[in-house]
Amino acid sequence: MGNAEADIGLIGLAVMGENLVLNMEHKGFTVAVYNRTVSKVDSFIQSRGVGKKISGYHDLAAFAAALKRPRKAMIMVKAGDAVDDTITQLLGVFQPGDIIIDGGNSNYQDTMRRSSLVESKGLLYIGTGVSGGEEGALTGPSLMPGGSTAAWPLIKPVFQAIAAKVEGGVPCCDWVGENGAGHFVKMVHNGIEYGDMQLICETYDLLKQVLGLSYQEMGDVFDRWNKGNLNSYLIEITRDILRFVDDDGQPLAEKILDTAGQKGTGKWTGMAALDFGVPLTLIGEAVFSRCLSAAKTERVRSSKIFSGPKITRPTDAATFITDLEKALYAAKVVSYAQGYLLMREAAKEYKWNLNYGGIALMWRGGCIIRSVFLGKIKEAFDKKPDLENLLLDPFFTGVIEDAQASWRRVAGAALANGIPAPALTSALAYFDGYRSERLPANLLQAQRDYFGAHTYERVDKKRGEFFHTNWTGHGGNTSATTYNA
Amino acid sequence: MGNAEADIGLIGLAVMGENLVLNMEHKGFTVAVYNRTVSKVDSFIQSRGVGKKISGYHDLAAFAAALKRPRKAMIMVKAGDAVDDTITQLLGVFQPGDIIIDGGNSNYQDTMRRSSLVESKGLLYIGTGVSGGEEGALTGPSLMPGGSTAAWPLIKPVFQAIAAKVEGGVPCCDWVGENGAGHFVKMVHNGIEYGDMQLICETYDLLKQVLGLSYQEMGDVFDRWNKGNLNSYLIEITRDILRFVDDDGQPLAEKILDTAGQKGTGKWTGMAALDFGVPLTLIGEAVFSRCLSAAKTERVRSSKIFSGPKITRPTDAATFITDLEKALYAAKVVSYAQGYLLMREAAKEYKWNLNYGGIALMWRGGCIIRSVFLGKIKEAFDKKPDLENLLLDPFFTGVIEDAQASWRRVAGAALANGIPAPALTSALAYFDGYRSERLPANLLQAQRDYFGAHTYERVDKKRGEFFHTNWTGHGGNTSATTYNA
Repeated sequence: MGNAEADIGLIGLAVMGENLVLNMEHKGFTVAVYNRTVSKVDSFIQSRGVGKKISGYHDLAAFAAALKRPRKAMIMVKAGDAVDDTITQLLGVFQPGDIIIDGGNSNYQDTMRRSSLVESKGLLYIGTGVSGGEEGALTGPSLMPGGSTAAWPLIKPVFQAIAAKVEGGVPCCDWVGENGAGHFVKMVHNGIEYGDMQLICETYDLLKQVLGLSYQEMGDVFDRWNKGNLNSYLIEITRDILRFVDDDGQPLAEKILDTAGQKGTGKWTGMAALDFGVPLTLIGEAVFSRCLSAAKTERVRSSKIFSGPKITRPTDAATFITDLEKALYAAKVVSYAQGYLLMREAAKEYKWNLNYGGIALMWRGGCIIRSVFLGKIKEAFDKKPDLENLLLDPFFTGVIEDAQASWRRVAGAALANGIPAPALTSALAYFDGYRSERLPANLLQAQRDYFGAHTYERVDKKRGEFFHTNWTGHGGNTSATTYNA
Repeated sequence: MGNAEADIGLIGLAVMGENLVLNMEHKGFTVAVYNRTVSKVDSFIQSRGVGKKISGYHDLAAFAAALKRPRKAMIMVKAGDAVDDTITQLLGVFQPGDIIIDGGNSNYQDTMRRSSLVESKGLLYIGTGVSGGEEGALTGPSLMPGGSTAAWPLIKPVFQAIAAKVEGGVPCCDWVGENGAGHFVKMVHNGIEYGDMQLICETYDLLKQVLGLSYQEMGDVFDRWNKGNLNSYLIEITRDILRFVDDDGQPLAEKILDTAGQKGTGKWTGMAALDFGVPLTLIGEAVFSRCLSAAKTERVRSSKIFSGPKITRPTDAATFITDLEKALYAAKVVSYAQGYLLMREAAKEYKWNLNYGGIALMWRGGCIIRSVFLGKIKEAFDKKPDLENLLLDPFFTGVIEDAQASWRRVAGAALANGIPAPALTSALAYFDGYRSERLPANLLQAQRDYFGAHTYERVDKKRGEFFHTNWTGHGGNTSATTYNA
């Protein structure tokens, strides 16, 4: 390939990077590739890249020279220092007006910082969420780009071409917002993915332990669920996984070690929720469940020490399965409602003008959490763009009301039988709190005023008027202004 | 007072600062005080400080000149920039060898940074937890000092004199560890305080809504509980609060608005837990419950939209009250076990040599979470300093086993009756997970391998051996090395 002929470049040839390159090339773009370990460049060009409009380079200057102006380079390296290093190197070979795109799972705060840095040099910066795993990267991922607004029209043709499409050919990719907005939305996507996966694991555990179903029977349950309201990628692959047998004819899933990693985006979502004061209980429990799963040796030990209740099998398995389906659906609604609240708070803080229906559309296809359900979320925001809480959309209110009794039965069965279902039960506790005109926080405020003179408001007075009671009858009347317990 | 005669100085005369000064003076120390708004200095000296060995100053140079060498100044100002500003000013008037003490609720990471800064100037730095509220500050707080080890012998006489004392006159103050260790332990203390308060609120709500008890009856229940295993400051003040009547003879607590603030230490504890990968579920739920309580107007609206179950009153109120007492106790054990795990992980990371029994002793008296229970924790660590998890100490294992059936009944009643009890129920789900030899994370690992080629381990192979399955039969065999979904 001659010089300055490539439409776009990509740096970092692990599975996601390779598949994105093949996807771009398949859509008609010529692609230049580079990898720090240069042997990877050659092996890719000589294997999966053979006979395609893909050119490989062993140094970044040659890579830059191969790109049409304004240059566009997408970085697919490990989030963290490697991204900063690559940006520094690109700044050395790129020119003002060129575009640097980070497609890894970077922290949105890093993206905000990098966006400023790159813009200060006269270049443009994009931090984009990429979801869909290796399969999605190859055949159509969900893309959530944010950053320098001026870069969007320039990358839009490539991004919308390679993105997943839903009904009517609509691409699962649109502009999210400035600086870190794309990576923030991707972070919330991943947090929601943690929640969805945890909910599925809990229902699988209940089917297995409370009902005693076989893997084939569980596969059939998920197959049925996948034809209803829960229709989604994760339910579909769960069905496939449950049905997958190992070489010896036994279910492979049963042989997989029950220790999950948690790093990066799930934990960041929880931290952002704490920081913004948004009760993201379900995702929080999902992240913590992964931590607990990792303590395998300790769990094995403690399982010998503690007793648990004997399982009481429900009299009607079919009803329990329906209860589980509804409980899973309702808890999922709570999780997405919480995730949307988090995006709303972040948008306020960072002055992002997020299009909530558009985000649902970006997640509707291509990505790991893709589902029919996201179409309903899009409809809710199309009807009411400033919807305060997803739970208040009439469709979702109806879902919850329909599921409520089932959900309570499932939560009760989990707790009575000693099967941990932290996401299902915590979501129900959140819903009960959310629909409570009064919570017991009045006692909490009294306690804080008692020991720390923190003052309180009253139900029979205007908001913003603060009272302090000398509860003990002794001690000073100085109220707390600098100390918070 | 002449020059260089004060044993210690204190900066920041809000309620905590004032009370600490009076406490120090009462124990025989002469104290110099300063406040940025200098009128506060005069009003304090002329009111609560009158006739005491307390001298007030309108500028920091005079304040510094009044202190014996090496100077010791305790800062009691709002955590954040005000602390940095005060340190900068003190560095201008102090000399090498002098000691700057921050007694506010500073973030432990800030304390690590400040500790380095102050030590680099040849001075010594202490970041100390102070708990006990205004009452404790006056009559004996719990103190958790960390920072420059060389400063400890110099401040020990003042700190141990003013600290709370437990049986045998043992002070609730000992050396915690280097740099940020004191503030980290204080942060966990506050997180645990969030959890304890939330648990009490949930049991109060269940007594009120499920049993329909009056405030006087609830006061009697907490009075009884305070004479048993739950004996503690927070149970005691809850009794007092529930019995406290307003001018019209009605319970005051019922008139307090149910919106609690959450800022600072509770949220930091949750963030640290996410960062260290420690499942701190109970405190997490407690922090999020405060967030939800703050959304009062939204809750009022949604309470009109959603229905809830009709309350089923338990047939035997006395049994339900006993169940509640046991559930509260068991959940509290879980919360402390989680908090101790967090300290253990942080100690590993920062190479702090934490004395876990000593920490229980510091919390045993003076502070907000003081309780008889903490004596049991001290005993557990005295017996086995490297105890892996509090739940595995035979005493606490017994507590949990004794409570288990009651706890499940309470959690079931809360969920069935629609009373939010996120901390009580989430702690039970955690316990069930903790005692599970197998969790459903095997399915989760299969999902991650399915969509992201993340690989998994197997129960029938050695740990550390990783497998990847081509679940769909198509797609490449490149595994994920740089991308984590």
